[in-house]
Amino acid sequence: MPLLVQKFGGTSVGDADRIRAVADHVARTRRHGDDVVVVVSAMGKTTDELLRLAADVSSVRPPRELDMLLTSGERMSMSLLCMSLAEQGIDAVSFTGSQAGIITDTSHTRARILEVKGDRLRGALAEGRVPVVAGFQGVSTDRDVTTLGRGGSDTTAVALAAALGADACEIYTDVSGVYSADPRIVPEARRLPRVSFDEMLEIAASGGRVLALRSVEFARNHHVPLHVRSSFTWEPGTWVVEEDSSMEQVVVTAVTHDTSEAKVTVTGVPDRPGIAARIFRALADNMVNVDTIVQNVSQHGTTDISFTVPKVDLDTGLEVTRALAPEIGAGEVLSDRDIAKVSLVGAGMRSHPGVSATMFETLAEAGINIEMISTSSIRLSCVVRAGRVEEAVRLLHQAFELDRA
Amino acid sequence: MPLLVQKFGGTSVGDADRIRAVADHVARTRRHGDDVVVVVSAMGKTTDELLRLAADVSSVRPPRELDMLLTSGERMSMSLLCMSLAEQGIDAVSFTGSQAGIITDTSHTRARILEVKGDRLRGALAEGRVPVVAGFQGVSTDRDVTTLGRGGSDTTAVALAAALGADACEIYTDVSGVYSADPRIVPEARRLPRVSFDEMLEIAASGGRVLALRSVEFARNHHVPLHVRSSFTWEPGTWVVEEDSSMEQVVVTAVTHDTSEAKVTVTGVPDRPGIAARIFRALADNMVNVDTIVQNVSQHGTTDISFTVPKVDLDTGLEVTRALAPEIGAGEVLSDRDIAKVSLVGAGMRSHPGVSATMFETLAEAGINIEMISTSSIRLSCVVRAGRVEEAVRLLHQAFELDRA
Repeated sequence: MPLLVQKFGGTSVGDADRIRAVADHVARTRRHGDDVVVVVSAMGKTTDELLRLAADVSSVRPPRELDMLLTSGERMSMSLLCMSLAEQGIDAVSFTGSQAGIITDTSHTRARILEVKGDRLRGALAEGRVPVVAGFQGVSTDRDVTTLGRGGSDTTAVALAAALGADACEIYTDVSGVYSADPRIVPEARRLPRVSFDEMLEIAASGGRVLALRSVEFARNHHVPLHVRSSFTWEPGTWVVEEDSSMEQVVVTAVTHDTSEAKVTVTGVPDRPGIAARIFRALADNMVNVDTIVQNVSQHGTTDISFTVPKVDLDTGLEVTRALAPEIGAGEVLSDRDIAKVSLVGAGMRSHPGVSATMFETLAEAGINIEMISTSSIRLSCVVRAGRVEEAVRLLHQAFELDRA
Repeated sequence: MPLLVQKFGGTSVGDADRIRAVADHVARTRRHGDDVVVVVSAMGKTTDELLRLAADVSSVRPPRELDMLLTSGERMSMSLLCMSLAEQGIDAVSFTGSQAGIITDTSHTRARILEVKGDRLRGALAEGRVPVVAGFQGVSTDRDVTTLGRGGSDTTAVALAAALGADACEIYTDVSGVYSADPRIVPEARRLPRVSFDEMLEIAASGGRVLALRSVEFARNHHVPLHVRSSFTWEPGTWVVEEDSSMEQVVVTAVTHDTSEAKVTVTGVPDRPGIAARIFRALADNMVNVDTIVQNVSQHGTTDISFTVPKVDLDTGLEVTRALAPEIGAGEVLSDRDIAKVSLVGAGMRSHPGVSATMFETLAEAGINIEMISTSSIRLSCVVRAGRVEEAVRLLHQAFELDRA
């Protein structure tokens, strides 16, 4: 009998009606003859409300207690879903992360899964029941309740699918799949029936926020086919699978964009070994996530180094860099919040070197200046003025004919 | 170092301000040099809100899932309290019922505690920390999450106090102790500095709803001194302790009353052995809790049997009794919702036989008719018309001079 893991996000179980709709879908899947393990997030805004309550109560919020607090959210959604399934005649049984045997390290609020035991889930499946598991949470090697951080419920679903040898992991969300570009900007954007894990990772990393990076990495490493789809239309969505030969035909799969970053430029940096390292070590030590880095050609023994950081980290990034500049003999540190990044992603780019030329020409023809460039083997990104990024997305979508199947 | 268990009910942790007030009190206790284990209920109306949500979602609510849902309530209050304690510089750590080692049977929604392990609590205390434990919940021998039913958090507190050998168990609530009568009816009612376990049991059973019966029984059986007090005034309240010789001086300790019951009368019951047993067995099998029972003297081979049941159980009680009446050859089954019970409680009643005479005379002088009488060794109860019960309470409080220390 095929085994599916079905994961439902916060909006999918946002209120009583939504929970009943999800129960209905799970019940259909079960009656269709599949075994199902369900993973749920906390209902809608529950997590935000709990965080607000915590802020009202205390300015000090120990991570262990924050985890204890937040994990009450999935407890509610999973028990309510089991009740709704019971009403539909489906024998469902809820399990906390701990009961499901999701063992993590002891890093509260951002724990990593070390092992998935899953004995009780296997037992429930063997009895013909539907296990409903709390996403986002686990139990640490110190027997404390932990949470997995951003995208944690997706990670729970993928980890369970891997541990139980599921045939697929379905991620139900409020969008109907992965698109060739953001449909709000490019109306003719197509839903992609299939992308590779590597493409999905690049899409996620460059602004397409359908799936959390971490869960895609986990799925790739454990060979779990993902199916991203909508819990509002219930239509087939996008499969995220191993790359196969047919995929190599497509050069560019999607255009993504990201307006969440800002640029920092350190001027007059002495062009000596080890100087750049000191800057980026200092940023890393302060938990500032650096994305694109560009170093200009050296002139008169100094150079300019530019890099992008999430806007939320900009203040810290500037503080760290400005404190360091005199020490390393650098000049001014400038910042620019008015930038955006547009990217092309496609597994076929590996074997088609002409992509970058077409991208640069397309942007140049429209008079859109490229301020920074970065590449991976299957991604090409340009930093441009924020005000021009939507136009850039539309032009590139057109230039690479992404509206055609 | 003395060890105290401090239990805070739902109104005591009803909002952010209340949680901070409780943290402040626990911090003071800790700084005073006592070791403290805290037990908390869910915040204010959380449990009611969760039950309403469950009713919105599904008409079927399996008890196991109901327990999973409701236990999220204490999870919130305990983690929030730990945060507030952290802000006060107190190293607190929350534990679920399961983590605290509260092992129960498998009766969901009304589980009984089988064993309290408490290893993690002992460990936390040894490290100088304040364990904050979720009341009302445990883990079953099947490793499922259970709840302890009405008054469950009090029971948790008493069970922990017994298991950890605490010097006292303080029950913080929204009243300031146990009174000689309900102060809303008798303004001159006195707060009792001390009552015995047996008196407290009778007071709880006859209408004084300060403590749940079950937790008092547990405290008596395990010799845990209880201190019932207010989390709003923080004044000393009422100690519930083993009976000692000084207590025997007091004949009547308190007047209680109860308006939550209704009367059922079965007329023309054949006066043969086994007939009453059939009635009360049928009621017990249908979970109808019978309180007072009175059987009249037999005339012409038949008798009338009257008994009281909680008003909420009246419909079931009537149904059961009416179905049985023809079988046992009885006549009509009548019901009366308009009754109330007034009771005198006092350990000294054992050795003072004059109490009943004074009680009956006091009521008779006021023209209050006694419809049923029941007694225990330390309690004397009369069923009267509901409209006269407050007057009866006031008159008896006066007659036994309960306003005097």
